[in-house]
Amino acid sequence: MHFASDNAGPAHPAILEALSAANDGYALGYGNDPLSEAVRETVREVFEAPEAAVHLVPTGTAANALILGTMARPVQTIYCTEMSHINVDECNAPEFYSGGAKLTLIETESARMRPEPLARAMETASGNVHAAQPGPVSITTVTERGTLYDLDEIRALADIAHGHGQRLHLDGARFANAAVALGCSAAEMTWKAGVDAVSFGGTKNGCLGVEACVVFDPDLSWEVQLRRKRGGHLFSKYRYLAAQMGAYLEGALWRDLATRANAAMAHLYAGLRGAGLGDTVLYPPAANLLYMRWPRALHQRVLGAGAVYYIEEGALDGDDPDEILTGRLVTNWATTEAEVDGFLALLQPAVAAR
Amino acid sequence: MHFASDNAGPAHPAILEALSAANDGYALGYGNDPLSEAVRETVREVFEAPEAAVHLVPTGTAANALILGTMARPVQTIYCTEMSHINVDECNAPEFYSGGAKLTLIETESARMRPEPLARAMETASGNVHAAQPGPVSITTVTERGTLYDLDEIRALADIAHGHGQRLHLDGARFANAAVALGCSAAEMTWKAGVDAVSFGGTKNGCLGVEACVVFDPDLSWEVQLRRKRGGHLFSKYRYLAAQMGAYLEGALWRDLATRANAAMAHLYAGLRGAGLGDTVLYPPAANLLYMRWPRALHQRVLGAGAVYYIEEGALDGDDPDEILTGRLVTNWATTEAEVDGFLALLQPAVAAR
Amino acid sequence: MHFASDNAGPAHPAILEALSAANDGYALGYGNDPLSEAVRETVREVFEAPEAAVHLVPTGTAANALILGTMARPVQTIYCTEMSHINVDECNAPEFYSGGAKLTLIETESARMRPEPLARAMETASGNVHAAQPGPVSITTVTERGTLYDLDEIRALADIAHGHGQRLHLDGARFANAAVALGCSAAEMTWKAGVDAVSFGGTKNGCLGVEACVVFDPDLSWEVQLRRKRGGHLFSKYRYLAAQMGAYLEGALWRDLATRANAAMAHLYAGLRGAGLGDTVLYPPAANLLYMRWPRALHQRVLGAGAVYYIEEGALDGDDPDEILTGRLVTNWATTEAEVDGFLALLQPAVAAR
Amino acid sequence: MHFASDNAGPAHPAILEALSAANDGYALGYGNDPLSEAVRETVREVFEAPEAAVHLVPTGTAANALILGTMARPVQTIYCTEMSHINVDECNAPEFYSGGAKLTLIETESARMRPEPLARAMETASGNVHAAQPGPVSITTVTERGTLYDLDEIRALADIAHGHGQRLHLDGARFANAAVALGCSAAEMTWKAGVDAVSFGGTKNGCLGVEACVVFDPDLSWEVQLRRKRGGHLFSKYRYLAAQMGAYLEGALWRDLATRANAAMAHLYAGLRGAGLGDTVLYPPAANLLYMRWPRALHQRVLGAGAVYYIEEGALDGDDPDEILTGRLVTNWATTEAEVDGFLALLQPAVAAR
Repeated sequence: MHFASDNAGPAHPAILEALSAANDGYALGYGNDPLSEAVRETVREVFEAPEAAVHLVPTGTAANALILGTMARPVQTIYCTEMSHINVDECNAPEFYSGGAKLTLIETESARMRPEPLARAMETASGNVHAAQPGPVSITTVTERGTLYDLDEIRALADIAHGHGQRLHLDGARFANAAVALGCSAAEMTWKAGVDAVSFGGTKNGCLGVEACVVFDPDLSWEVQLRRKRGGHLFSKYRYLAAQMGAYLEGALWRDLATRANAAMAHLYAGLRGAGLGDTVLYPPAANLLYMRWPRALHQRVLGAGAVYYIEEGALDGDDPDEILTGRLVTNWATTEAEVDGFLALLQPAVAAR
Repeated sequence: MHFASDNAGPAHPAILEALSAANDGYALGYGNDPLSEAVRETVREVFEAPEAAVHLVPTGTAANALILGTMARPVQTIYCTEMSHINVDECNAPEFYSGGAKLTLIETESARMRPEPLARAMETASGNVHAAQPGPVSITTVTERGTLYDLDEIRALADIAHGHGQRLHLDGARFANAAVALGCSAAEMTWKAGVDAVSFGGTKNGCLGVEACVVFDPDLSWEVQLRRKRGGHLFSKYRYLAAQMGAYLEGALWRDLATRANAAMAHLYAGLRGAGLGDTVLYPPAANLLYMRWPRALHQRVLGAGAVYYIEEGALDGDDPDEILTGRLVTNWATTEAEVDGFLALLQPAVAAR
Repeated sequence: MHFASDNAGPAHPAILEALSAANDGYALGYGNDPLSEAVRETVREVFEAPEAAVHLVPTGTAANALILGTMARPVQTIYCTEMSHINVDECNAPEFYSGGAKLTLIETESARMRPEPLARAMETASGNVHAAQPGPVSITTVTERGTLYDLDEIRALADIAHGHGQRLHLDGARFANAAVALGCSAAEMTWKAGVDAVSFGGTKNGCLGVEACVVFDPDLSWEVQLRRKRGGHLFSKYRYLAAQMGAYLEGALWRDLATRANAAMAHLYAGLRGAGLGDTVLYPPAANLLYMRWPRALHQRVLGAGAVYYIEEGALDGDDPDEILTGRLVTNWATTEAEVDGFLALLQPAVAAR
Repeated sequence: MHFASDNAGPAHPAILEALSAANDGYALGYGNDPLSEAVRETVREVFEAPEAAVHLVPTGTAANALILGTMARPVQTIYCTEMSHINVDECNAPEFYSGGAKLTLIETESARMRPEPLARAMETASGNVHAAQPGPVSITTVTERGTLYDLDEIRALADIAHGHGQRLHLDGARFANAAVALGCSAAEMTWKAGVDAVSFGGTKNGCLGVEACVVFDPDLSWEVQLRRKRGGHLFSKYRYLAAQMGAYLEGALWRDLATRANAAMAHLYAGLRGAGLGDTVLYPPAANLLYMRWPRALHQRVLGAGAVYYIEEGALDGDDPDEILTGRLVTNWATTEAEVDGFLALLQPAVAAR
């Protein structure tokens, strides 16, 4: 009953097997080996983008910061949302990699950036020498609250960014979960909707630690590579990043794993509604992530019984059993139906007492 | 016959097995799991430094830049050597992580920083508001030319740094190779000789990709952690870094692997001397790295016959068969005697023609 | 009728005379001359702070960024308000000088930072490795909307900052206007109320271009000096900065000039109320700055008649004569009663038509 | 007898008069006033460059760092000389403004950068992802040792930079002294010789504090302006920078003042030769700067008698009267023949004792 994060789950066996398979004799370092070249090509095929720059890094923060740092000039501001990972969970990585660009927080609806305030903010800053100038726009889907952008919404934001000569970045830490939820292809969710670069996540969805920076304008490729090296993210034994990403894409494993995680969440959400807790859920979960607002006593009971998840707002310790605390549940590819059912069973007495 | 780099060799099987063993069920992310805690403790034991901060990162550039960036203020200069990895092979990573500190290049003897010019440089800069102020000193052993500092030489540099209130950093990308060559312990080669922080390398010596930042002043630990996160180097699935480092230290595997690599180089060097090529070697190899100055024709013959190594100075293509080009040979834990012998055999006709 | 900004007004003659007086023969550069030393001492006396570090720079942005950049580490966030000069009018200078720290915007009341949300924000960020850590707090008085903090309000914010081991910075671009409005001394408005460093403005109040960084902790002095040099703000002919500041403080000229500017605004505000426009004023002006919300037609008429001021929100060109646009009026030491009366006269027909 | 620096001398009266003349009534801030526009146009005329971007800043370090920071990407290296002001006298300002670019020191002859090692360095770094990439080239004339580049030498360096797609920057802190010494125009010494941007100095040659960033590619203008603001160098009361620069150029005052300074140095150098000290001069002074190597006893006598100049190498206090210390003499527009003669007179007894 471990719902703390999709990064707390294990790697898929196929990923580990690929590491062993890659561990055969010598291979030139830094991505100059045949496996690495083949995997870059596979990523381009998955994205139907034969010219795209594909550069692997070990973490999502690295992918986001590297792409945004390449796209944003230090006199600019990056547009994102208040709850975005780049704003609250990267300890100033975007500021660092961009050389001191600012983040401007745009209003949201269900954790999705709204187009009107974005348009207004970009318009206001533009051409005023005292103000940070409009820079790239960064969105996340699956969002940090478990919701999704549909493709038209992505396109609307892309159009605004492009109208100011700026680019749209997609933080795809849970890219696979979003794509299977939407039932769309990698291309449809990115460049066909106006996305200029994506942090294509593998780590949360069954890899050990690999993300692909996929940048659709090949003119940025060399700069991304130099900045990756400067950030300390160019692996000498690059084949072990490539092997993970290759196995992840092989036979659409990435979609299969996300399908499992999303199904586990659907099962969990159905159970919550069945238990009469549907109205405690912040947003209906579109993929594998859910926020719920429960009284302290319920959290204490469930966590005390062995479930694992994070309290996002409020303190578990406290006197008032009725105070509402916000918790977060995340499923992953390895979450079993039994785990979910076990979790739901913990709710029964508490629900009865509600 | 692959002598391009120790990072071109495979990972040791024990490292891969440790990854599989760690891949069991759930583990809290970001190093908050029992395995990660245990491995940090093991590193401290190996270094006989119960208070040391131990933070894992995936690359040597990350380890160096993170430590130096924490130690150096942006108005300072970092002292290193002209051929140091941080100067020529990290695409401005130290400048990046330090927020724009300068590198000042100190004269060398056999690729080792000389103490007198270091003392002079630190003295000159100190207290002059127009000049970058003295910052940390960074040395590498095994050096980038395959030589070693003995412990007294490290101590002399440490004393100079400390005399200016600054710290000494050791780039230990080939730490194990140096330690077994000197026959000394990890503690003797570091804090007992005045080293304040070390990039303790695993990648080149049989791991997939892991280095430990070992910082002996625990007061720096939190700042290193924050800057690691900011650099995108805090792994969510940290257990896979920890597993590698744990297996690397288990049963002194790290020393065994380095002993093998050094022995292979000793065999290679003996063969070169036997072939009358001893005087073409730039510095007698103290560990697993050697530079040699050969005529173009000899390089062409040997590389044409299937040996793999880098030409460090000069262009392989060229008209003059007698022009001297500098090459570099590196052995690794997996280098076999047969490989070395095969390589030496290639030299015979060329040597005869010399 | 020029109310665009207090930096659009002329310098006071005494400032220019001081430049001429200082232009006599040789003086060592970079502040190492007797006049510069004497002026630093005078600033310390005015602030009743015999140990304070006093360093002159030519602009307010330089003073703010230099102080905040010295106080904030790159892994931290600086707390300020949405409308603060450092957030909207310095093109990322604080981010630049701090090496990539973030700005976190705290809720306001009448453009003054509120203490509760500040306390909450600092508490939340503290100790979470994923989040930018609490850094210095920066406030402005006279605020960017013309209001004032009283001394207790400053103290409350200082206590919160100090409770997290952080410092409080005061952007005093209009320090003199605030001090005379409150009727308090420089010391009372700063260190006696918990302020750790102040950008003490001279430029807007009758100088050509000089601000003093006054930092009450002398341990920061050397770092400020080094960073000032690194920012290109250490004047070689420093005596011309010192001469301005010396004349500005001589005989409390700084307070006299601010008194004049504030009086002109009081006269203007009285006139607006007399004309029935009191309710169009956003906040009653405490010093020399006022925001007013007028219909487009009124702005067009007044500006068309030769008055000069900025429209802060909305576009002067537009079809709807009744649309409300926000304008800003600023008086300065040289504003005459006749100018104000002339301006008020322009309002009459428009007011009649209201 | 003050030869410490040309920045220790007074401002020319015409500059101060221009400040008073500019201090008339209101003027829009930040360079948006008619005087500022007119002065920008005058600079363009002096440089025969109708499209050039002209942006004023108060110090030479600001001008250099702003231009180089705009031209250099953070993954690049800036090529300069060991003794260049940007390397030894700006406390990492170029590193700061470029976001962490490196400085690579190119060999010199008489303090002038040599073309062959520059070509070699740019060639070596190019296209290697591990190395800082070739960036702009920065030279100084009058050099930091008082020598000059002739126009062909500038052109040769420009060609190498341009051949790598990079730009050539000229640190013209003593631009006027160089131009009159060469007898060439501002255009001939810059864009006609391949220079892409110049820090055109006013401060050392009779202004209070003003330098013009003259960038011949107008496409860089907006970025320079934004970075100037970000650096805190956009003056609100810009008219006082403009007034200085306007007076400096009016009637070729800049050339007259430099002619005086150079003539004073010529007189001084002639006196040194006449006193038999010609061979103690490091390089024959081409403009207004001279280094001389004298025994400690001579320095002590001359300085003790009231002359003022800096010892650049060695310590004045010391036991050995015969130890050679390097001193520096600088003349400025206000240096009188009497001052020089008085200085030369001080040498007589010492020379006799030599």
